[in-house]
This record gives sequence, structure tokens and C-alpha cells, in this order.
Amino acid sequence: MTLPAPPVAVVGLGQLGGSLAAALAAAGRPVTGWDVDPAACEAAAARGVRVARELEGVVVLAVPLPAMASALDDLTVAPDATITDLGSVKRPVLDTVGARYGSRFVGGHPMCGTERSGFAAVDPALFAGARWAVCLDEGTELPRWLRVAELALAVGAEVVPVTSDEHDAAVAAVSHVPHLLAAALAAGAAEAGPLALALAAGSFRDGTRVAGSDPAFVTAMVDGNAGPVAAALDRVRGQLDRPWPELVAAGHAVKAATDRRRPVRVPLERSALLELGRAGGAVTRRLAAFLEGWIPE
Amino acid sequence: MTLPAPPVAVVGLGQLGGSLAAALAAAGRPVTGWDVDPAACEAAAARGVRVARELEGVVVLAVPLPAMASALDDLTVAPDATITDLGSVKRPVLDTVGARYGSRFVGGHPMCGTERSGFAAVDPALFAGARWAVCLDEGTELPRWLRVAELALAVGAEVVPVTSDEHDAAVAAVSHVPHLLAAALAAGAAEAGPLALALAAGSFRDGTRVAGSDPAFVTAMVDGNAGPVAAALDRVRGQLDRPWPELVAAGHAVKAATDRRRPVRVPLERSALLELGRAGGAVTRRLAAFLEGWIPE
Repeated sequence: MTLPAPPVAVVGLGQLGGSLAAALAAAGRPVTGWDVDPAACEAAAARGVRVARELEGVVVLAVPLPAMASALDDLTVAPDATITDLGSVKRPVLDTVGARYGSRFVGGHPMCGTERSGFAAVDPALFAGARWAVCLDEGTELPRWLRVAELALAVGAEVVPVTSDEHDAAVAAVSHVPHLLAAALAAGAAEAGPLALALAAGSFRDGTRVAGSDPAFVTAMVDGNAGPVAAALDRVRGQLDRPWPELVAAGHAVKAATDRRRPVRVPLERSALLELGRAGGAVTRRLAAFLEGWIPE
Repeated sequence: MTLPAPPVAVVGLGQLGGSLAAALAAAGRPVTGWDVDPAACEAAAARGVRVARELEGVVVLAVPLPAMASALDDLTVAPDATITDLGSVKRPVLDTVGARYGSRFVGGHPMCGTERSGFAAVDPALFAGARWAVCLDEGTELPRWLRVAELALAVGAEVVPVTSDEHDAAVAAVSHVPHLLAAALAAGAAEAGPLALALAAGSFRDGTRVAGSDPAFVTAMVDGNAGPVAAALDRVRGQLDRPWPELVAAGHAVKAATDRRRPVRVPLERSALLELGRAGGAVTRRLAAFLEGWIPE
């Protein structure tokens, strides 16, 4: 039940884009790559990626958020190409890139970056087992959504169907707020003084790890998703106001919840796919007229 | 320049106590152990620990905070033994155990637990390179402080001299507040719904790791240090109110600071030792009339 695998072109060959291109090349799939940094192009070429400025098939924007809108300006894109991206917020990309490419644009976000960045951090196994949000917005064409979903499945990810706004609210809670909490924990400990930092151990190291990320990247991410991040941060503030035994028990219950899954078949239909995503499920495979996946029990 | 190594007796053979007893036994040092759980005693005996209820030398209380005050009730303790503990808060232990044993008590806290617990989590290398706070309070006898410090050095830790109150303020910021932030992050994400939890990845996993700890243990820890934890949490709340670019930059600066050390010699004298601790330094070795250590540059 193999489906056509369109050629893929990746613009931006840093950690995410470089890893995606490398994973596809390793799987024997035709993949073109481009980066403004010749060293990134060279590193990708060494992994079997064809370096070129002519892009077709599924074109993946793997550049920082501020560069997203202009990333294709000096490149040649086939008129029927599907455009997707790997940006960590989806509404601003929909409003810029989506406005430019209309129904040819399908937003995406693989949940697997690390605090490292650049082509030196490329890892073809980066996507294996990761969730990859693929946006099904009002104007999204389902066949193009499927092409992007298949790309994600091809590199070992599980696809979570979402609207751009649902995505942004969700990642505010599980990805953007963690960056602010990590920064606040680190800065608060520094206020406490050198003795506190000298006694810092595992819980501090883990709780502040993502504060090691590039601050420009983090700032673009939280400012680019300001409304949902403020709402998610308010929920965390509310949690911090609870009596501590209650708060500790609630946090532990979330962490201790077992990941029980039930296999499902989902029709290739927008509302059924979005329902799966809202229930916390994911797509793992495409059959002829269905998608296979799972849903939490 | 070897110094007398008094016998050590460890009461409570879970992760911390069991690891300490195992590390000492592995180093060929006489060590006695006791636990109310026969299985924990058996596991320690298999690592070369002598299981007995008669304790002498340096007696280490490695039991949960609520059990600390009564841990020695049914055991025989030599009248000149030095009593220390491994509890995660020091003022409440000073007020209970310290009140009972007077100047024979020296509080301590190795900064190296994990979210695991019990004798199955024993690791003789647990203390290697860790900081170990050893309390020098008003009534602490310096020779007994040195015995506890030597025990910490013997298993590869670096000793941070502190008062009990300084310790509690410092660990509130770097160890206790991280547990509350982890719980609030997990509970806040659960409020956001199943889609958010399905998209959770590295930053959420790291930011919530310690929410996996035993909630009874965490609650005893934060409630046992309520004042300093509330103060440290308020500092974090204040940080979260800053403009995000400023907050992100401040957190990153703390995380990116390089750990530059200058070797120092510190006289065996209370105020000099406490000054070293306040500056963020640590003791690494005892010479005849000095301690060797380092201080941040």
C-alpha cells in the first residue's frame, strides 16, 4: 500500500531542516536542500542532499521565524509545490506565508528540537517517535495536508492533526511556558546568591536546561505566540497559588499517568482528523482511504 | 597527610543512606547500617555493610524528614558519637535532633538525590563530584564538623560550609522551588487538555521531571521549609512578571555563566569557612591546619 512520495526540498539546513533532509536522503528519497550558509549546504551535501535553488514537490521552510516570510524570495519554487514549515508557532506563519501561498500552504511543527542548533546538531534520527503537528486550517487542501503528513511519517514521526490556533495554545503550555519558567528559575536562583548556585543539583539542572537555548530564538517564539503564552502562564500562576500539597499531588498525577493507547482508523476527513488531535491522539500510517493511529484510553 | 577515619553508622538504607554506606564499604572503611526494612538491610549487607543496632563514630540519619526525630529511639548510640543527617531541610532537623543531641549534632545535606528512591536506587558513585552542605551553626563543635566534612570528602563530594538557615534559603531557590514549578507546569498543561500533553516534548519532559518524585517526600520538603520556599517562589513570580525578552536574557546569562574556580586555602575557622560557602565556594581536601577548596572567580 505504498503511496507516491513527492520530492522534498528543505530551505534552511540547521538542526531541524538538516536533520529532515538527512533522514530523507538516508531513506533513499530524492531531497533538495538550500541554506544561505555555504557550510550548512556542504554538510548536507555530505549526507546525500542535492544542493539547489530550484524547489519542487513539498517545500519545507526550516528557517527561524523572523526569516520565514522572505525565505523563498531568491529561490525558484515550482508553481504547484506544497509549502510547509517547521516553525514553533503556527498562526503568525499562516498569516504571512499562508497569506502568500494560499491553499498551497500547510503549516507544520515537529516537536523534537533540542537546546542545540545549527548544522553541527543535525541528527537523522531526530524525528523518530516524535509528534509532528500538521495544520488543518479552514482553507487547507486535504491532499496537500496528506503530502506533508506522509513526509512526517516517512521520517518516523507521528502526525497530530490540529488547527493553527489549537497548536499555538497547546505548545504555549508544553513548550513556550517551560522556557519562561526555566529562565525565571535560573534568574531567581541568581538573585538568591552564589551559595544557592553552588548548591544547585539535578532538579535545578533539569528545570533550567532550556534556559541554555539561544535567547533570540526563545524571544521570537514567545513573542510570536504572546496571547496563548500569556494565557498558559496565567494557568501556571494559578497552579502556583494552590496549597502546596494539592499542587504537588496534581503535578505528580499528570506525570504518573500511564500512556495507554487504543488503535483507531480515521477517515480522511477534516473534522474526524481534528477530533483525533483534540483527544490527544496521533496518526501513524496511511492506508488507502483511512489513516491509522491511536487515541488515549 | 591521612587523618583518622572514624567508624560510620548509617540509619536508613534507602537511596541516599544505602549509597553512602555502600560507597564507604567499597572504600574499605568500617561501616554499620540499620533500616527498619529487612530487605534494605539485606541489600546493604550484600555490599559489605555490617548490619547492627549499635552505632558509634559518625552516626548518619538517612531517613525521611518526618522520621528524623525518632530514628534513633530503638537503637544504641555511643555517648560520644557525632550525629549528622542527610535531610533536605536543616532548620527543622536542628530544632528537633539538634535540640536533643546538642553540640554533638552537625546537620548535613548532600545535593545528589534523584527522583528515584529506596534501596533499589542505591549507587555507590552517587556522591562523586556532588556538593554536600555541612552546617556550621552557632553551637556546632568544629572538630565534629570536620568529622562530617571528612566523611563527605571520603565519598568524593565537595563540602559547602553553611549555617542551617543559609542552607534552607539556598535550597529553597535551587531545589524546592523547582519541584513546585515542575508540578505547576505539569498541572497547567493538563488544564490545557489532551492535545497539549500529546504535543509535549523535551522542554516539558525536563521541566516536569521532578514532578515524578514521591509527592509525600516533596510535600514534607517544601512544608518543612515553608518560609524560605515562599520567599524564593516570590522571587520567581517577580521574574515571571518581567518583560519576556528581559527574562529570557537574564535566565540565559545565569545558565551560560562559566564555572571558573580559583583554588584557595581556608583556615579551620568558623567565619572563614562560612565566608567561603557564601561566596559560592567549596572545600575539597583537608590538610593539617587548613582546608583546600575553591571559590568562584
